[in-house]
Amino acid sequence: MENIDELWRGGPRYIQRAGVFKLGSDSVLLASFAKLGRVRRVCDLGCGGGIISVLLSAYKNGLIIDGVEIDESAAHLCRENAELNGFGDKINVILGDIKNHRAILTAGGYDLVISNPPYFTRGSGYSSADMSIAREEGQCALGDVCSAAAYALRWGGSFCLVHRPERLGEIFCLMSASGIEPKRLRMVQHKAESAPNLVLIEGKRGANPGLTIEPPLIMTGGDGGDSEEIRKIYRRG
Amino acid sequence: MENIDELWRGGPRYIQRAGVFKLGSDSVLLASFAKLGRVRRVCDLGCGGGIISVLLSAYKNGLIIDGVEIDESAAHLCRENAELNGFGDKINVILGDIKNHRAILTAGGYDLVISNPPYFTRGSGYSSADMSIAREEGQCALGDVCSAAAYALRWGGSFCLVHRPERLGEIFCLMSASGIEPKRLRMVQHKAESAPNLVLIEGKRGANPGLTIEPPLIMTGGDGGDSEEIRKIYRRG
Repeated sequence: MENIDELWRGGPRYIQRAGVFKLGSDSVLLASFAKLGRVRRVCDLGCGGGIISVLLSAYKNGLIIDGVEIDESAAHLCRENAELNGFGDKINVILGDIKNHRAILTAGGYDLVISNPPYFTRGSGYSSADMSIAREEGQCALGDVCSAAAYALRWGGSFCLVHRPERLGEIFCLMSASGIEPKRLRMVQHKAESAPNLVLIEGKRGANPGLTIEPPLIMTGGDGGDSEEIRKIYRRG
Repeated sequence: MENIDELWRGGPRYIQRAGVFKLGSDSVLLASFAKLGRVRRVCDLGCGGGIISVLLSAYKNGLIIDGVEIDESAAHLCRENAELNGFGDKINVILGDIKNHRAILTAGGYDLVISNPPYFTRGSGYSSADMSIAREEGQCALGDVCSAAAYALRWGGSFCLVHRPERLGEIFCLMSASGIEPKRLRMVQHKAESAPNLVLIEGKRGANPGLTIEPPLIMTGGDGGDSEEIRKIYRRG
């Protein structure tokens, strides 16, 4: 199975292939959550097929992105997606394990570290065998992601990640323990009155405590279709 | 200045007096957030004039509550409010400092610890001199509240508190560090599309990680008046 999707009309294209974790809204919402104002150097931890790296490159010219991916076929696909969109010289894919961050990343070398990590703890049974690297934490626990982010970020740099609401307590504590202070939080909800199904989190390395919780990102509008904000993120209408 | 308010028609009454922190919706929302199913022994840390203790006693018969308050006039008022509502033998007010929790509370003696603590860090300038104990953390930092809660709670017991959203990161980390795992979180928002102005948090002593984020508590309805849930909490209509 192989598909090429256009992410929006005239926007970047994205190859999907059997065996590599599918394009989901989580990565798209995370990419749109990150603030790129002064960002130039980005590290995408567990970049998979490269959706976040491609989106960020489309949002802002001139970003230099290192994607780290442990799965060889996903890393290969990420290179293809970068080249397909003309970002081959801007997106560099590192085939490696984020637990080896000292060997593969530059300390303090990034303005932004971004990650859509595996959501489930090892053996929680959410995954088929071939998808387990991307869905379960066996290869990449939350603490490893935070340690790699803290190592890679410059002082004051941002760490953005998307995760499931039930992990929020652990995320805040692991981030803080790694020297990254939680600074911004946004709930993603299907409806205004529903519980969140995702959380978007930004921390800053070395910052003082103090969290801004933003208004929720509500996915459906009054008519049951996509909300205006979701349509903007996907550049529809 | 002295007022006596009926909290709802035929419900408990509450004396307010100049110099003691005013009755606010925060305490009412916190009292309604706590689950009282199997709870019998409660500790209200920084009980002020006793609003939470009085509400909990009205919600469930037979609760045995120890309120701890460092300010003498507030502690006195709490006793008056307990007696005014016939809870004089159920609500016991301890005039003391929660930093001395080992001297004034029973270790593991409570099913529920509840607190509406000072919201602002010392010297943040949010308080007039006479309200500073209730509003600023000089006498009672978040870490002191968590330590006292962890000491007082039985294994598996609940700690409920209300706080400002910007402190959420610190709260989760301090709770975890005290051995109380964040288990339930609810945002309080004026409108569905607004940022939260308060957070309601429940942790459990000795629990495993895993947070449930509930649907937001939205305070105003479509007509701009109180939402149905707020009317229920205040038992109006």
